[in-house]
This record gives sequence, structure tokens and C-alpha cells, in this order.
Amino acid sequence: MKIAVLGTGGGARCHIAKLLELGHEVVVGTRDPQATLARTEPDMMGNPPFQQFLAEHPGITLLPFGEAAAAADELVISGIDGHNAVAALTVIADQLTGKTLIDYAVPFVYQHEPEHPWPTPWGIMPKLEPVDTDSLGEQIQRALPRTRVVKSFVTQEQSTVVNPAGVGGGDHTMFVAGDHADAKQQTAALLKSYGWTDILDLGPLVAARGMEMYAHMHSAIGFGLGQQFGGHFGIKVVR
Amino acid sequence: MKIAVLGTGGGARCHIAKLLELGHEVVVGTRDPQATLARTEPDMMGNPPFQQFLAEHPGITLLPFGEAAAAADELVISGIDGHNAVAALTVIADQLTGKTLIDYAVPFVYQHEPEHPWPTPWGIMPKLEPVDTDSLGEQIQRALPRTRVVKSFVTQEQSTVVNPAGVGGGDHTMFVAGDHADAKQQTAALLKSYGWTDILDLGPLVAARGMEMYAHMHSAIGFGLGQQFGGHFGIKVVR
Repeated sequence: MKIAVLGTGGGARCHIAKLLELGHEVVVGTRDPQATLARTEPDMMGNPPFQQFLAEHPGITLLPFGEAAAAADELVISGIDGHNAVAALTVIADQLTGKTLIDYAVPFVYQHEPEHPWPTPWGIMPKLEPVDTDSLGEQIQRALPRTRVVKSFVTQEQSTVVNPAGVGGGDHTMFVAGDHADAKQQTAALLKSYGWTDILDLGPLVAARGMEMYAHMHSAIGFGLGQQFGGHFGIKVVR
Repeated sequence: MKIAVLGTGGGARCHIAKLLELGHEVVVGTRDPQATLARTEPDMMGNPPFQQFLAEHPGITLLPFGEAAAAADELVISGIDGHNAVAALTVIADQLTGKTLIDYAVPFVYQHEPEHPWPTPWGIMPKLEPVDTDSLGEQIQRALPRTRVVKSFVTQEQSTVVNPAGVGGGDHTMFVAGDHADAKQQTAALLKSYGWTDILDLGPLVAARGMEMYAHMHSAIGFGLGQQFGGHFGIKVVR
């Protein structure tokens, strides 16, 4: 299958590499391919320049967001950060029409104030916007009424999403939510190919609120486990 | 040990009954004992009148909130609902001085508007207040600076908190957070006596934000499992 991944950050790279490994054709979207390729320094998260990743992963096509989305057979994974996702996706609504879009962003608002350092000493993440009575997943679906939006992956580090067996032998739970059953089935099929065996459908996209708000709990658990910078754990729903 | 439980609702009753079973002396606090005893109808959650519970659990002493708190040796469990907790506890700050207070409330704001039915069709809980940048646990600690506040129990139905083995053989995780290590140790000791074997300390009380915000995820998981009215599951942190 030809799958589009929008974004070139650390999370997106996890999916790109895994999809290539699984034999998919991968088109990668970025705002400005020339600018992405021109970078020679690590990004703010410490990821090496994308041109280095490209050199190590032959076969990737790098395109502007809209062209990458248009090139996908059916499935588009958005790795665009939560702060920019609605605006960036709205611009390419036509190219996303009729496709399934998996969104895994947390709508963090980073406050670089001296009294709110990030990461905080106690491992708590910055504030969310929207929160509680709305979610980024729902915002994206409202902005893209002709696209089938699925919220998933968001309760985990993306390195674990593409390699569930790396934590506890893989015996933990992944969640999906969305208003389109067929799109959730596509997402679950992808997750199974990643190695997930326990995939729980939380229902309509409104459940994205809980999935996104879990970010604070995820951070706190990571802190509790002494894994302040990047969690290496999963949660299993025990019935 | 003489333990005070503040509140007479369904969650409080779970703790009262379990503490009696474990051989503790239990004093129960309520706003107005005479009014509590005068009720002959089930409460809004369908719990039978408290006088019936008292008749079935001999040895309980029912007192006004402040007298119950004062009577506790060290440990007070607050079963006061999130909407009323700060106000009700502030009034008895003197009686809570020097004690450990375990708070398990979710600060729900119920909106009984026709367009926001509760429970909703999709199992999502009402909105939280505070949320994201503050928590009820932190509010209570600020209101009671001479009390050691611990947030715990809140990620579970209280019927499961007092009987962890009732779900998945008990192989799931309970969380504690607070700014006082000794109070967290007291809480963990209580949890062990309840049967918990996996108790994770999330760190300072600021982690209460994640624990309270997990309420939406808990509701969504319950809905996903088809357990819309009261979850019967746990989450295990898989390392």
C-alpha cells in the first residue's frame, strides 16, 4: 500500500521506518521539502537532520504536505504537532478527501515562562488546548468533514507504537477512536501489522478527549518510573 | 487504628465496610448526622438509605464532619464529592491539622442541560473544574496547609479499590501522589491491606492533575468494554 506520513519529526520517522520495513511504499509530507533537506543541524528534539534519515532509508519520496496526501492510496498518518495540525491539514483538505487520517498529536501549548520550565522538575507536560470539552481529534474532523479521522497511537511513545513487543513482551493495550468504523478497521489492521494484539475501540471520536488528556497521566507514570524523558512502558487494560 | 471516612455515598461505603472487615475502628463524617439518618429513600446514585447500611455494619460511629476528622488517630479518607470538597474541608481545617487526608474525588461539574445528558450516550463524563493547570488535590492541599494530602484511589471504582483481586486477579496498578512521603507511605500501607501489590508513586501532588484527568479515559475504556455504568476493569503499568 502507498501510505503518506505527514511530518519529519521523531514520531513520524518511527512510522516511516516501520512502514518501509513492512514493505509499504511511503510518501513523506513536509511543509517545504527544500528547507527540510537543507537542514544540517539536529532538530529541537535532538533528531539528526532529515537528509541523514533519508540516506539511511532509501525509497522514501519527500513531497509538500498536499502532494504527499494526494499520493496516498487510502491511509495518511499525521505526524504534525498538535499546535499546527488543524491549520496545516485544513489547507490540504481537498487532497485528504475520501482518505483515512490517523492523528496522534497531543495539543500541547508550550509556555516558555521562567516559572513554567519545560520539562518541569516533576515530569508534568505543558497545558493542553483544547481540553476536557473538546479535543484536537474532533477539531481535525470538523475541519475535514470529507476525511475519516481516527485518533490513535497518542497514549504511547511512537517508538513503542511501532514496536509494542519492546515493552513487557507486547502485552499492553492500544486504543482507537473515531466516527467511521471502516477507518478504525484500517487503523486496527495497521496496528496488528505493527505487532499489537490488544486493540480497544473506545467508540466515537469524542473519546479522543480522554486519550489526549491521558498525556498528563502518561508523563506522571513515566516520572514515577524514573523515565522522565521519554516513557518506556505501556498500559494494559485488565478485564 | 481509628480511621475517619468523610461521606456516606457509595464510594465511602466501600471503604467503611472494608476498614471494618480489616478490624479498624471507623468514624464516619457527614454534614448533618440527623438528616443523614432521617433519609428513607435511595440516594441519586441508587444507594440504599444510610441507616440501612449502618444497621448492616454495626460498630460505626456517625458524626459531623469536624468531629469525625478530630476522632481519627492519623488517617482521614475524604469521600466528599469533588464539587463540594474544598469548601467542606476548609471548614474543618483545624480538626484535620497534622493528619493524613486521602482524597479520591474527581472535580466533575455536572451540566444538567438537555444537550449535555449525563451519562452521555458515549460514556464520556462531564467536564472537570479545575483541569490541566491545577487539580482538586492541589486545591485541597492549598486550603489545608497543615494537613498531609494524598491523591489516590481516583483512577478506579471504589468497589475495585477495596477489592483489587476482583478484577483480573488483582494484577493491576494503583497510583499515589502527594508532597509528603510519610503520608504516601501510610496510604500505600492501607492499599496493601486492601490487597494491592502494584502501587506506583507518581511523585508530588501535581501528578493529581493526570490522575483526575484520567477520568475521561476511564469512562472511555469502560464504554469501549461495554461497561457504560461503572467500570469493572483495571489498568496495569507494563514495564
